[in-house]
Amino acid sequence: MSYFKKYENILSEAKNALINRNYYTSYPELPKFYGEDGDSKAKAYISSVMNGNFSELIQDAEIGFAGEEISPYLQLGLGVKYPQSTIASYINLAQHASDIWKKVSVDERAGILVESLERIKLRFFDIAYATMHTTGQSFMMSFQASGPHSNDRALEAISVAHTELTKHARETDWIKPMGKFELKIHKTWKPIPRGLSLVIGCSTFPIWNTLPGVYASLMTGNPVIIKPHPRAVLPIAIVVGEIQKLFKEVGIDSKLIQLACDTIEHPITKDLASNEAVKLIDYTGGSEFGNYIESLGKTSFTEKAGVNSIILDSVNDFKSVAQNIAFSASLYTGQMCTAPQNIFMPAEGIKTHDGIISFEEAAKQLCEAISGLVDNPKAGAATLGAVQSELTLNRVKNSSSYKGKVILDSKAIKNEEFPDARIATPVVIELDKLDEATYSQECFGPIVFIIKTESTADSIECAKKLAATKGAITCGAYSTDIAVMEVIADAMNSVFTPVSFNFTGAAFINSHAAFSDYHVTGGNAAGNASFTNTEFVSKRFVWVGNRYA
Amino acid sequence: MSYFKKYENILSEAKNALINRNYYTSYPELPKFYGEDGDSKAKAYISSVMNGNFSELIQDAEIGFAGEEISPYLQLGLGVKYPQSTIASYINLAQHASDIWKKVSVDERAGILVESLERIKLRFFDIAYATMHTTGQSFMMSFQASGPHSNDRALEAISVAHTELTKHARETDWIKPMGKFELKIHKTWKPIPRGLSLVIGCSTFPIWNTLPGVYASLMTGNPVIIKPHPRAVLPIAIVVGEIQKLFKEVGIDSKLIQLACDTIEHPITKDLASNEAVKLIDYTGGSEFGNYIESLGKTSFTEKAGVNSIILDSVNDFKSVAQNIAFSASLYTGQMCTAPQNIFMPAEGIKTHDGIISFEEAAKQLCEAISGLVDNPKAGAATLGAVQSELTLNRVKNSSSYKGKVILDSKAIKNEEFPDARIATPVVIELDKLDEATYSQECFGPIVFIIKTESTADSIECAKKLAATKGAITCGAYSTDIAVMEVIADAMNSVFTPVSFNFTGAAFINSHAAFSDYHVTGGNAAGNASFTNTEFVSKRFVWVGNRYA
Repeated sequence: MSYFKKYENILSEAKNALINRNYYTSYPELPKFYGEDGDSKAKAYISSVMNGNFSELIQDAEIGFAGEEISPYLQLGLGVKYPQSTIASYINLAQHASDIWKKVSVDERAGILVESLERIKLRFFDIAYATMHTTGQSFMMSFQASGPHSNDRALEAISVAHTELTKHARETDWIKPMGKFELKIHKTWKPIPRGLSLVIGCSTFPIWNTLPGVYASLMTGNPVIIKPHPRAVLPIAIVVGEIQKLFKEVGIDSKLIQLACDTIEHPITKDLASNEAVKLIDYTGGSEFGNYIESLGKTSFTEKAGVNSIILDSVNDFKSVAQNIAFSASLYTGQMCTAPQNIFMPAEGIKTHDGIISFEEAAKQLCEAISGLVDNPKAGAATLGAVQSELTLNRVKNSSSYKGKVILDSKAIKNEEFPDARIATPVVIELDKLDEATYSQECFGPIVFIIKTESTADSIECAKKLAATKGAITCGAYSTDIAVMEVIADAMNSVFTPVSFNFTGAAFINSHAAFSDYHVTGGNAAGNASFTNTEFVSKRFVWVGNRYA
Repeated sequence: MSYFKKYENILSEAKNALINRNYYTSYPELPKFYGEDGDSKAKAYISSVMNGNFSELIQDAEIGFAGEEISPYLQLGLGVKYPQSTIASYINLAQHASDIWKKVSVDERAGILVESLERIKLRFFDIAYATMHTTGQSFMMSFQASGPHSNDRALEAISVAHTELTKHARETDWIKPMGKFELKIHKTWKPIPRGLSLVIGCSTFPIWNTLPGVYASLMTGNPVIIKPHPRAVLPIAIVVGEIQKLFKEVGIDSKLIQLACDTIEHPITKDLASNEAVKLIDYTGGSEFGNYIESLGKTSFTEKAGVNSIILDSVNDFKSVAQNIAFSASLYTGQMCTAPQNIFMPAEGIKTHDGIISFEEAAKQLCEAISGLVDNPKAGAATLGAVQSELTLNRVKNSSSYKGKVILDSKAIKNEEFPDARIATPVVIELDKLDEATYSQECFGPIVFIIKTESTADSIECAKKLAATKGAITCGAYSTDIAVMEVIADAMNSVFTPVSFNFTGAAFINSHAAFSDYHVTGGNAAGNASFTNTEFVSKRFVWVGNRYA
């Protein structure tokens, strides 16, 4: 049985989900669904690959081996070394590998790629620990974000691409009545792949942000080179190894996907990105480099920095709101691109069921909610995870240099399992709306600004202006007034920013679910691409029609 | 009855055609379908608007009136003057007009826009004469290209946009099982228009190349400013007037579409294009300006210069091939973007049913076919039309300065109806494949190069390289060998160029039919956009989702 036949139903379900945009997954998010001994085996696996040459990739090490990952939990180097080759070699091998792949039918491509996700599934625990010890995510987030949720996004990309690639006839007899005769022309259409695809990974979500571009490019027939962040290689290396092994097994050149590793000291990203052979570039990371990528004049898909706002107008119960925001700001130490940074609140405070809560009281309750969460021994360490880089930690340490009043200090709480973990709880700083120079930049990490505005209308204006000029991936809003909610939605949507209203309980603005939520709209400075809209796949191939008289 | 209800069937048929890519039109191409007295009324209409201020636009003339069109048939100024306003005024009015329009439902937008095509249909004869006397197209081409074929392309853009805008749910209750409870979030999605759309017209196809961008932008909710070529305003002015009148009638601000006219001496295109408020730019014209448009970093849709090749390998009957190529090269004096320029032929000649025709003999027969066509009193003038600009005429006049041997001279044949028409028949120049500097540039107009190559493989290599580096919109190929045909298709398709094989009789490579043929692939230097692929509409809006707990 072909892999397409095997997975036809999954593909069909996924495509239906994309139309209805209901909850859908082919990969449940809890570890318990993936075997009982996965956890202990994975711990042993990580120990076994440390301090050695990574051998799961079907790649040569023309130049040698290199690796410089540091576990944010152990603050020790992992010692895993990855093969390195020349850029010319990666590119030659990739182009050669694409000759066969582009002739594989769209259905069979889909089948093989879904099978690759099934193989990756068997490595979810290994990937989780690899993610933990490179990104600093908690075990649960590592498991979910790099495992099931990444596979969801990959399946989404496959499904959107399959829809686009099969949306119209591949051939027809075109017959035009010409009065006394008919003009008959046989026509064919082929989706021609754009060419070599470079996917540049980031240090905090090395799989989740990488797989959509990888699967969108592969599905549309393009060879892929992944350039991971040098501090977060292992998770994606495991994934690439699995895909390469499958390709080899089914007679596809395994070099169709390659991992091109570099080091902080000797980066190769610009050499790869600017190489004439590279036609597609996916990128997640800082805005400066993202703007460089966009300026190359190639087809690019970027997710860059943005500043996410929360607008506080009126609430039923402020305690549950404060808890929700506290969690969103603390989760993975604010290192998610969807973490809230700026909380806009009118000077006069917030309307609640029980009367008005003053600005100061609301700010105090928010700080208390954060303290309550991070100081809770059962929840704090697991929510925060660890800080991925020294750079982020230093930014928090220097938070007293920011304008404004620090109303909650950052501190290092204890992680019982990892006493050496790099940890920082959120710092909360009170600002005035005039302190725009401070809050209008992305302060990546656990830094929260509570900004005093003249009114909710003023808050909306501030958040809208920020999203328009600096970009935003998400926005939270709390209001019990339908008219105000509409004004907020119109304002933020007009600058291409989605709004999540009145999230409490288990609903968090950080989460974007595959098959339903677009991740990044592609409309503002936070990025030019979106997981997964039509363009995310359609830009990777070109319809070309031939005509036969 | 709403216009959507009225035209729901047409929309449905058009969307089916786009899937099946069969022949489809809602606007038959022959004049006889559009009234018996249309022709005489239109002639009277053109006389009535000459030498006066054009009054059909619902626009103010803040600055005054200007116009400088010259009929290529009369070589006299038309004297029609169009209202001019400041750029700030156009932009302010456009942005204001979009407030209502973007709230009109996608269905109602489609209905109103199809109704506008029905209104335009009533002006087909007026538009035809306006096109003739600005572009130099023959009456029949003017009628078809600016009338039914333009309406087809507009309906195509409406249909592709309607499909994209309705492809998934606009709201849903997203329910995620969380073990002991369900997480329920109400979600909505809105297609937010990108913003002000500038459509820059060209002098040779002032409607056909303009309407796709106009209708794609309007359908996706954006206001439109059309900046026509100062030498070809009248046809599109009539169209804009009709659309504005309809908008006013249905309570939509007529400034949703505006015509911004300039003059050769005082161009406003760069000021418009670079204005921060302009988010979308459609452009048809030369490559230099097109590259400037693309470099602005906005969402652009360009059709630029390209060099179209014909590859001669083997034929059944060379006479019918020569006639077909002669017509394609002579039609509208080679001023179509789909006209062939370079004919690649092996030095050893072409295989036919009756043996080999030598290179020299084939070249001679091609010249004879062109002469036979242009010297035929019944066909010549009607096929050639007139030369739009002095620039093009001068290029032909100076053709002796090109490298190579002129084997057929250009001349001015007689047009019985318009003795003063600017006319030039094709010049044919024989070149060697090494004369690349000459044939690798687009020589817009009736200039044909017959290029001697070493073999068919060599011809393919030359045509492929040209398309890859200079761009190509189409390619013709003649071969009776299926294996050779496949090699040609693979080679040219790999550089995103469609191939038309063995066209004779009534099939011409110049024609791209709406609902079936993509016009320009968007994959090579001839342009970054395609009529009408998904991206042509999806880039004009952004999906933004809101979530409600």
